[in-house]
Amino acid sequence: MSQHPNRARLLISCQDKPGIVSAVSTFLHQYDANIVQSDQFSTDPEGGMFFMRIEFDLGNSSPDFLRFKKEFHTLADKLDFEWKMELAARKKRMAILVSKEDHCLLELLWRWRSGELQVDIPLIISNHPTNKQVVESYGIPFYHVPVTRDTKEEAEQEAINLLKQHDVDFIVLARYMQILSPTFVESFPYRIINIHHSFLPAFIGANPYAKAFERGVKLIGATAHYVTDDLDEGPIIEQDVLRVNHRYSTQELRVAGRNVERIALARAVEWHTNDQVIVYGNKTVVF
Amino acid sequence: MSQHPNRARLLISCQDKPGIVSAVSTFLHQYDANIVQSDQFSTDPEGGMFFMRIEFDLGNSSPDFLRFKKEFHTLADKLDFEWKMELAARKKRMAILVSKEDHCLLELLWRWRSGELQVDIPLIISNHPTNKQVVESYGIPFYHVPVTRDTKEEAEQEAINLLKQHDVDFIVLARYMQILSPTFVESFPYRIINIHHSFLPAFIGANPYAKAFERGVKLIGATAHYVTDDLDEGPIIEQDVLRVNHRYSTQELRVAGRNVERIALARAVEWHTNDQVIVYGNKTVVF
Amino acid sequence: MSQHPNRARLLISCQDKPGIVSAVSTFLHQYDANIVQSDQFSTDPEGGMFFMRIEFDLGNSSPDFLRFKKEFHTLADKLDFEWKMELAARKKRMAILVSKEDHCLLELLWRWRSGELQVDIPLIISNHPTNKQVVESYGIPFYHVPVTRDTKEEAEQEAINLLKQHDVDFIVLARYMQILSPTFVESFPYRIINIHHSFLPAFIGANPYAKAFERGVKLIGATAHYVTDDLDEGPIIEQDVLRVNHRYSTQELRVAGRNVERIALARAVEWHTNDQVIVYGNKTVVF
Amino acid sequence: MSQHPNRARLLISCQDKPGIVSAVSTFLHQYDANIVQSDQFSTDPEGGMFFMRIEFDLGNSSPDFLRFKKEFHTLADKLDFEWKMELAARKKRMAILVSKEDHCLLELLWRWRSGELQVDIPLIISNHPTNKQVVESYGIPFYHVPVTRDTKEEAEQEAINLLKQHDVDFIVLARYMQILSPTFVESFPYRIINIHHSFLPAFIGANPYAKAFERGVKLIGATAHYVTDDLDEGPIIEQDVLRVNHRYSTQELRVAGRNVERIALARAVEWHTNDQVIVYGNKTVVF
Repeated sequence: MSQHPNRARLLISCQDKPGIVSAVSTFLHQYDANIVQSDQFSTDPEGGMFFMRIEFDLGNSSPDFLRFKKEFHTLADKLDFEWKMELAARKKRMAILVSKEDHCLLELLWRWRSGELQVDIPLIISNHPTNKQVVESYGIPFYHVPVTRDTKEEAEQEAINLLKQHDVDFIVLARYMQILSPTFVESFPYRIINIHHSFLPAFIGANPYAKAFERGVKLIGATAHYVTDDLDEGPIIEQDVLRVNHRYSTQELRVAGRNVERIALARAVEWHTNDQVIVYGNKTVVF
Repeated sequence: MSQHPNRARLLISCQDKPGIVSAVSTFLHQYDANIVQSDQFSTDPEGGMFFMRIEFDLGNSSPDFLRFKKEFHTLADKLDFEWKMELAARKKRMAILVSKEDHCLLELLWRWRSGELQVDIPLIISNHPTNKQVVESYGIPFYHVPVTRDTKEEAEQEAINLLKQHDVDFIVLARYMQILSPTFVESFPYRIINIHHSFLPAFIGANPYAKAFERGVKLIGATAHYVTDDLDEGPIIEQDVLRVNHRYSTQELRVAGRNVERIALARAVEWHTNDQVIVYGNKTVVF
Repeated sequence: MSQHPNRARLLISCQDKPGIVSAVSTFLHQYDANIVQSDQFSTDPEGGMFFMRIEFDLGNSSPDFLRFKKEFHTLADKLDFEWKMELAARKKRMAILVSKEDHCLLELLWRWRSGELQVDIPLIISNHPTNKQVVESYGIPFYHVPVTRDTKEEAEQEAINLLKQHDVDFIVLARYMQILSPTFVESFPYRIINIHHSFLPAFIGANPYAKAFERGVKLIGATAHYVTDDLDEGPIIEQDVLRVNHRYSTQELRVAGRNVERIALARAVEWHTNDQVIVYGNKTVVF
Repeated sequence: MSQHPNRARLLISCQDKPGIVSAVSTFLHQYDANIVQSDQFSTDPEGGMFFMRIEFDLGNSSPDFLRFKKEFHTLADKLDFEWKMELAARKKRMAILVSKEDHCLLELLWRWRSGELQVDIPLIISNHPTNKQVVESYGIPFYHVPVTRDTKEEAEQEAINLLKQHDVDFIVLARYMQILSPTFVESFPYRIINIHHSFLPAFIGANPYAKAFERGVKLIGATAHYVTDDLDEGPIIEQDVLRVNHRYSTQELRVAGRNVERIALARAVEWHTNDQVIVYGNKTVVF
């Protein structure tokens, strides 16, 4: 898990055209950067979209990262890339929004403390005080921002302010149970990850376990996705399922489901953290 | 896999009430039948539904099966059971309806020939001649009953007649791709098993793989269910899923999906064959 | 998850013979106990072993539990049962032994606090002080019992004394990383559950992830088993696996493996807690 | 699934060093070849081994494939590559060796006929006549080469001769149940794929299902691997598992295991067919 101190990651989206890999890899070689891993994907080799992720190590004679990025900018403009380049060592700042249930929260906190999840967590916001103590035992500031029907707008604004003040890179809804307004969503485009407690698009909306019980399904699932204005319709990052049977009550489905929810969410967060996800249209490429 | 020649299976559904297990097991013991396996399930121990499946071997001093059944009838009436008792050695008569795609058909035929699926297959019906040769190579009569918009009703009637003439116990739609009329469905209540090529209730209706591609799901699934008048809404017997990613085209999802379809269908058929499935409401208990 | 206050569980092992189910269910019915769930298994219906697990609710006219048990004793003696009867409400006393790694420990603590795992945890023992703080934040006494090559015997004796003083029902080795002496094992027969970090019997002994890396396997696994005198050879309760590939270093296998270890262990502990496991020979029946 | 008529695949193994991706992608671009997919893997970015797989489409101004290959040869020599370049349209010639059990054989034949498996099958060899009819119904020549203790050497020689006469690219042991001599193995280095009916390295050698039954495992598995001189020790290509429980007899494990065997083998064969597998040491990289 130890890695080169100058390990960097490059994500590229563009119209497919000949010579992209050659141009990029030659650029990297020319500036003494060594490709450690690369993945690419074309929706259609003849005129579709092209996506690429490269991990590379800057070398002894590479320029410093800022200048390196600036040089790449020129190439990227010429080839009409949408792109992003990050040092792996730069930890993203992740906020967590949570309600009363703690299983997704704890999963993220454990992985963070064990070093599996390489982020900083400047704050955790909840509409309930329930998880205050556990959050603070991890040394993370906890903000209780209650939400009622009447104060929803102000509460959201307060949350947005907190998130901006703490300069967060992305937000995880770890079973937050509140529908975010378009204003909130647009403040963090494709930077809010939600866990929905069903195998989308089955059981959109509230009470998916009750609906799953009603329908008599033999597997239950969970879906981690980016939040957009359409409820439960954002780009899917990860899904997983668990076998159940006729013996499960709605409540037992809910309890069993926690294990799929936290694992699927943790995977999605890890991939986002490692710059492994590119959104296109309403889908994701996960490298 | 070899089993006692007088192995029998008993399925019971009734209102839950005290003493059912005792009454049934005492009956069996009294008539020298030895319980080999038993499963039971109550939706709610206080006043819900009770379901039970018992496998037992008739003993040397048991009456013959017909008389045994008649004796049980008296008990069942007293306790207000819905019930079914079958000798395991009595092979069910299974018909297969298939269209052009052969993966589900071949899976069933292979399991049948290898002895995994203990049924007789008196006939296979298709609306296309495509699979005639392979079916006949297994020594099974193949009936080509073409269906067009104008002849749908007569074609269905022809199929029903064939199925009745061949005295079938149940029917498997192994990717038949035709919607059955209420008349057809009512002729074989809870005795028609369909395989739907999605993880229901996601992607109900036509072209589920195209819809799955569109939505960008990370798992695709298949659902084996009993056919009712509501399209894709019948009681689910079995579901399974397969991990996919952004690289799969609709056509590649379709190809990969075949493997989930045939496995999920084969399991459902096997459970039905072994009298392991009880329908209640719009759900199944699978023992 | 709420349950009848007089819910009880009965486990039976004996030589198979006719009439067992009838005798037991009639006994229960006669004392106004209502069977809620029952499972049984015969290794061979003709003269093998018979195993049974029944959940039942004592009724209004049932005798109290102690007398009920005493009455059953008479029947059990007559039919030559090995048996165990427990009130579901009686929480087992579980000790955890842990070393430095905390993932299995935290999984159990979370499930305990969320109410999924219905046990009391009177103490946690570790040969390292690492996890003292987290354990105490859950309000559980933490005992640091260091083990060195020279003090192993005394350390074990100290641990045994602590476990006996706290009257524990069973012990979970949540990555304890110490081989227990026969004396220790015999003090708690089939009441010590270990998690081995491989898919046994592959990679018995130390460093299974290094061995898995070396062998180039495509799945890694974990095995929860009862501890016996033969290292990694005790009866298996649960196993699970995770897909890996050539990109995983030994260290990355180790990190990924944590997720299989904690889930497999948690399942095994839950089954043990709910009296769902019967040991026979070197195997388990899990009802 | 349709693809560019001039789609080609390039596999490279070499010592890792800077500039490889750049050199290869620039070569391809320079000869008007468009990269469709590429994967790479370094065992250690600083001085380990480097592996790469590129799919590309030759363009209108590319030289013909033979000249293209020759040009690449020069680059490959300079950079000290071990490499392989193949047109995707060139179907590999696959032989199948089979004994009596037909499940793996049929799985391959179905996938071949449905177009999932893009190979030619010039012959199938068996030491038993059992599967003659089914093989010939697919229009494939069947050779019965009986093997007895005394004739093993001649029989092997006859098989080798048949395989060479039919100019096969690789051989699949679809439950062949005979141990091949070093002479045989060396005639087709890393071009023989076997399916072992256990999760290796558990249960090496004969009767793995009997051993799995004896050990009381909760999952059974299958392993597809290249054959080397060390029995069951060759590089693993794919593994899969299936959940079982105490109710499975050895025979039922065997029957259930067929489904894992055929799926794991089919995947391994497909990956080999598509030039997705590189062997290094005793492991595989599967791109």
